[in-house]
Amino acid sequence: MLDDFAPLAAITILGVLQQAYFSLQVIHARRRFHISPPAVSGNEDFERVYRAHLNSSEYFPMFLSVLWIAGVFFNQTLAFFIGVLYLCSRYKYFKGYSESALKRLRPLYFSATMLWILLGLASIGVLNQLSSQYLGYNPITAARSHIEL
Amino acid sequence: MLDDFAPLAAITILGVLQQAYFSLQVIHARRRFHISPPAVSGNEDFERVYRAHLNSSEYFPMFLSVLWIAGVFFNQTLAFFIGVLYLCSRYKYFKGYSESALKRLRPLYFSATMLWILLGLASIGVLNQLSSQYLGYNPITAARSHIEL
Amino acid sequence: MLDDFAPLAAITILGVLQQAYFSLQVIHARRRFHISPPAVSGNEDFERVYRAHLNSSEYFPMFLSVLWIAGVFFNQTLAFFIGVLYLCSRYKYFKGYSESALKRLRPLYFSATMLWILLGLASIGVLNQLSSQYLGYNPITAARSHIEL
Repeated sequence: MLDDFAPLAAITILGVLQQAYFSLQVIHARRRFHISPPAVSGNEDFERVYRAHLNSSEYFPMFLSVLWIAGVFFNQTLAFFIGVLYLCSRYKYFKGYSESALKRLRPLYFSATMLWILLGLASIGVLNQLSSQYLGYNPITAARSHIEL
Repeated sequence: MLDDFAPLAAITILGVLQQAYFSLQVIHARRRFHISPPAVSGNEDFERVYRAHLNSSEYFPMFLSVLWIAGVFFNQTLAFFIGVLYLCSRYKYFKGYSESALKRLRPLYFSATMLWILLGLASIGVLNQLSSQYLGYNPITAARSHIEL
Repeated sequence: MLDDFAPLAAITILGVLQQAYFSLQVIHARRRFHISPPAVSGNEDFERVYRAHLNSSEYFPMFLSVLWIAGVFFNQTLAFFIGVLYLCSRYKYFKGYSESALKRLRPLYFSATMLWILLGLASIGVLNQLSSQYLGYNPITAARSHIEL
């Protein structure tokens, strides 16, 4: 049942709220630095805010994909908490990039690490499922029973 | 079962078709205003069409996220009709922005309102589900039975 | 059960990996052509790599949408293989565009064809489901039994 995935849905809603917030910050930056649409260049302070939003938008579908697959095929609670850390680091990235190009780097690396962890968990979960479905062998269950013995 | 969400899937397909249409309009605008790839600037008429497409692309994953969560956790019929209104206002936004930066504003505000409504319904649905799952208390069912008494 | 869709989840993970790869190529191109953030113009070789990534990012949510709907409502195996072809053509598109604007065209047309096929299958599957749900008539089952007679 899809109802079972309310924690993943909650993270998704928080992610949408964050994207909406970034989007509003771009509108404020347009007013502050006098950059009228459709222009997106002409002032480096505006360009950094604009780029921070665009970069977050590009990563948003990738984040949602691995969040849900990791949560469904590996472990929802784990995916939930890594998702929270990802959103926090994205916020710091946006704030940092708004100030200077250098300040975007540390939270960017951290958010990328969270994404790679989700991608790793998603891959393990899906490979385990494919293996048990097509080869009749479930490596995770096998590993667990091996540890318990 | 995922089969039960055919109306949400129909809106999703319509949204993909709309994005494909916007994408083709950018290609036509490239030819009309003689802007060859990879350039995306040099003519303000082209830039408005380009920006209208990019803005719609940025909002598309946010729209799909809240559409599906509102439909699954709150009410599918309601999410379906708000989804239709969102896609209509996105079309008007694209057409308006293609003509002038000013004409994009009214449909943009309307589409944003539809997105906020979907986000509100999605939040209520997910909070209700989390509450009944972790606290054993279902506020929506409780409110309904209170009204019926 | 969502577990049944491990093949679609596998394609989704491969798609995320590809987007991550494109994203890293943009970072390498920044270093190679000395374009520091937030700038995204100033060298046409860099601009082509940047545009190739942005275009793939714009199409990624559209691809995932029709992949999953075609897989859930029509046929998962078929959607899986068309998904593989789409990702291969996106890779060729990226490599081609990195070399010249002309070399992007053939793989772009091929990837667009794969997207239209997925969209067609998704539409047939959803219309069939809506028809059987709201009209009590299932055209695909009816067509099959007609062929078998």
